[in-house]
Amino acid sequence: MKSSKTIIKGGRFLIPGTDEPVLSGYMTIEDDLITYIGKEEPLAEDGVLVVDGSRLLFMPGLVNTHGHAAMSLLRGYGDDLALQVWLQEKMWPMEEKFTGEDVYWGTSLSVLEMLKGGTTTFLDMYDHMDRVAEVVELSGIRSVLMRGVIGLCPEEVQNHKLAEAISFARNWHGKADGRITTMISPHAPYTCPPDFFVKFVQAAHDLDLPMHTHMSETKREVEQNVVDYGMRPVAHLEKLGMFTRPSIVAHGVHLTDEEIEILARHDVGVSHNPGSNLKLASGVARVTDLLKAGVKVSLGTDGAASNNNLDMFEEMRLTALIHKGVSGDPTAVPAPEALRIATEYGAKSIFLNDVGRLAVGMKADFIAIDIDQPHLLPHTDLLSHAVYSASAKDVEHVWVNGKQVVKHGQCVTLDEEAIRRKAQESFDGLLKR
Amino acid sequence: MKSSKTIIKGGRFLIPGTDEPVLSGYMTIEDDLITYIGKEEPLAEDGVLVVDGSRLLFMPGLVNTHGHAAMSLLRGYGDDLALQVWLQEKMWPMEEKFTGEDVYWGTSLSVLEMLKGGTTTFLDMYDHMDRVAEVVELSGIRSVLMRGVIGLCPEEVQNHKLAEAISFARNWHGKADGRITTMISPHAPYTCPPDFFVKFVQAAHDLDLPMHTHMSETKREVEQNVVDYGMRPVAHLEKLGMFTRPSIVAHGVHLTDEEIEILARHDVGVSHNPGSNLKLASGVARVTDLLKAGVKVSLGTDGAASNNNLDMFEEMRLTALIHKGVSGDPTAVPAPEALRIATEYGAKSIFLNDVGRLAVGMKADFIAIDIDQPHLLPHTDLLSHAVYSASAKDVEHVWVNGKQVVKHGQCVTLDEEAIRRKAQESFDGLLKR
Repeated sequence: MKSSKTIIKGGRFLIPGTDEPVLSGYMTIEDDLITYIGKEEPLAEDGVLVVDGSRLLFMPGLVNTHGHAAMSLLRGYGDDLALQVWLQEKMWPMEEKFTGEDVYWGTSLSVLEMLKGGTTTFLDMYDHMDRVAEVVELSGIRSVLMRGVIGLCPEEVQNHKLAEAISFARNWHGKADGRITTMISPHAPYTCPPDFFVKFVQAAHDLDLPMHTHMSETKREVEQNVVDYGMRPVAHLEKLGMFTRPSIVAHGVHLTDEEIEILARHDVGVSHNPGSNLKLASGVARVTDLLKAGVKVSLGTDGAASNNNLDMFEEMRLTALIHKGVSGDPTAVPAPEALRIATEYGAKSIFLNDVGRLAVGMKADFIAIDIDQPHLLPHTDLLSHAVYSASAKDVEHVWVNGKQVVKHGQCVTLDEEAIRRKAQESFDGLLKR
Repeated sequence: MKSSKTIIKGGRFLIPGTDEPVLSGYMTIEDDLITYIGKEEPLAEDGVLVVDGSRLLFMPGLVNTHGHAAMSLLRGYGDDLALQVWLQEKMWPMEEKFTGEDVYWGTSLSVLEMLKGGTTTFLDMYDHMDRVAEVVELSGIRSVLMRGVIGLCPEEVQNHKLAEAISFARNWHGKADGRITTMISPHAPYTCPPDFFVKFVQAAHDLDLPMHTHMSETKREVEQNVVDYGMRPVAHLEKLGMFTRPSIVAHGVHLTDEEIEILARHDVGVSHNPGSNLKLASGVARVTDLLKAGVKVSLGTDGAASNNNLDMFEEMRLTALIHKGVSGDPTAVPAPEALRIATEYGAKSIFLNDVGRLAVGMKADFIAIDIDQPHLLPHTDLLSHAVYSASAKDVEHVWVNGKQVVKHGQCVTLDEEAIRRKAQESFDGLLKR
């Protein structure tokens, strides 16, 4: 492969957690890596692509650590309902009908939305994962993929699903120029009986892969866990051995001090899904306490059916806002921390240690937002603007793994027109079937 | 004036609170009024402008019932600070330096942002209000304007400010083709001593105008009111006679059942400012209880310095989300109710009874959003998409008082380039002075 080199000239760069969080200067990308960032202008030899960085704010691509991309087909199909009604009367009957083709177009719709909105990495837990991986290959996005398994079924079906999850994880790990990694993912402690759950733990050990599951999203589910197994979900998962693997749990809304301590001790990440947790009335996660305890907190959109968009800027802002309002402390989750949660901590939470920051040696996954717009002026503090004022639609350019995938707001790797049409057709088809 | 007529052909129209909340059909606008909306295609005579409504979702313009537009100059200038530090070290020292020119450009920046984001009416409480009115005249937006008066000053200064407030309210009421109405606005019970406050009540009676003030935004301010005057703010304002005038209060975060009952009895509106209340850690207003008691709830962005944008779609979504999450009830503030709060109830709250709905005889203040986008597909429930998925930047066209002011995302009444430059210059000047 011929090597490529790009220089961003005269831009502003967000580097939260450093002495100069808004750096004015230059950044060089060679192949898939950031090889320079600083104030000195690098030499632009022949064949180097120079990008004018004025009017633009560069930041790490956003990392979405929990979701079900294909569920975008059910966006707006059932809102403002009690959780059980929503699941049993709306989501499950429709999801049962999903074919691989539906998953392909639903995932395409979501990946298109995510890329255009500045998300460069997403975690996806769903079914028909080969079709999801196809979309990832084609689109140029980075992802962590896993077959999510619900084990409320006969043993034979359980074993079939488990085998599917294992074979998917083995086949796709490291594929698409390394943009795809995989995990092992029993859906939740309340949908996978203990003896089945431990088979996933064993598989994760065998394949040397991390694990992901839903945990403590609702109060009811925590109470039921105590009834069924005599302990709360964190102790339950610890007992089943999940935390002997590198792990990330989604939601973690209802946690005791003791549970937070256990998660911190095992370095288990928590994917905070503020939009979904509010919309489904699950509650408000103890994010400031998790951070204080040293737990890796990251952000997930969850599926679009419970969000109802995949705008990670919105999740980042919700995180910076809600925990202030609920705690009464206006200094809770300050802007630089919210940004790191949405980027750097996100990448670390899904075990991508070379993603999530603008720094030499990191993967060139970054985005540029147009800062010469009324709602992003005056230029007082651009980091604050990125967190408190911007939205997905301010994203002008997106690079993943060193390749530009969104240019002037248009995705250059996917056929947007076809995806829009096919996604609508898929939904119409689901309604009819 | 030559009469004008426009027909919107083949659009989708949001009419929440009716049997058919998403109507497919036609709408006719003659001069400043909606004269037809329905499924029959109206006759397009010569000289009638026909707008193709396909790909577009039409809805009433959003109504922002509390803000300080010029404060956009301080967007991002001080975040994540304790309220007193933010006010005393950041906001007040800068605001003290605001000239009429600063107010003009700060307001222009905000009006530009609001119009482009689908807000067709805004309430503004600030200083140098003549300059604010100029922006309103020029831009074509609708507004309710008032000089907000802080009375923590010698009597002579107090009286001067009061006279200014009265003369502004008298001079501008009904101006700009009726797009400007005015109110009388003592800043807050904690910044206006009782004897001064009652002079505003008297002035409002004399001019036959409504009143607006900040009330019960923070717990601390409520407690101080009890210390100073022996009662909570609602009883205090009732005693001072404010509620003998048509009134709307901003924030109303900390309210008892009894206070909610008093507000309902006097038909006092509450401008809910969710973004600002979260960011400043003021708390979460009792919106579902207010609605249940029959109080008119509307939405305000507050100033951009505590928000930090003026995206009313975001406030609408926050309202639909937060109260579910905090109450534990996923049916709280359903999408149609959130939309009405952001439009119809907003207009009623600021006493504009012919604004806020798409219906015959109403003012033609409406917006169109581009619904053929990934995050607004598939078309399951377009009302849900408007509330849960859309943002300011999805707005394609905006009409106020029958005139189109935003066309394909560009504001046609204001010079955006000049405003962006001047707003930045104003901020730079404030920093230097």
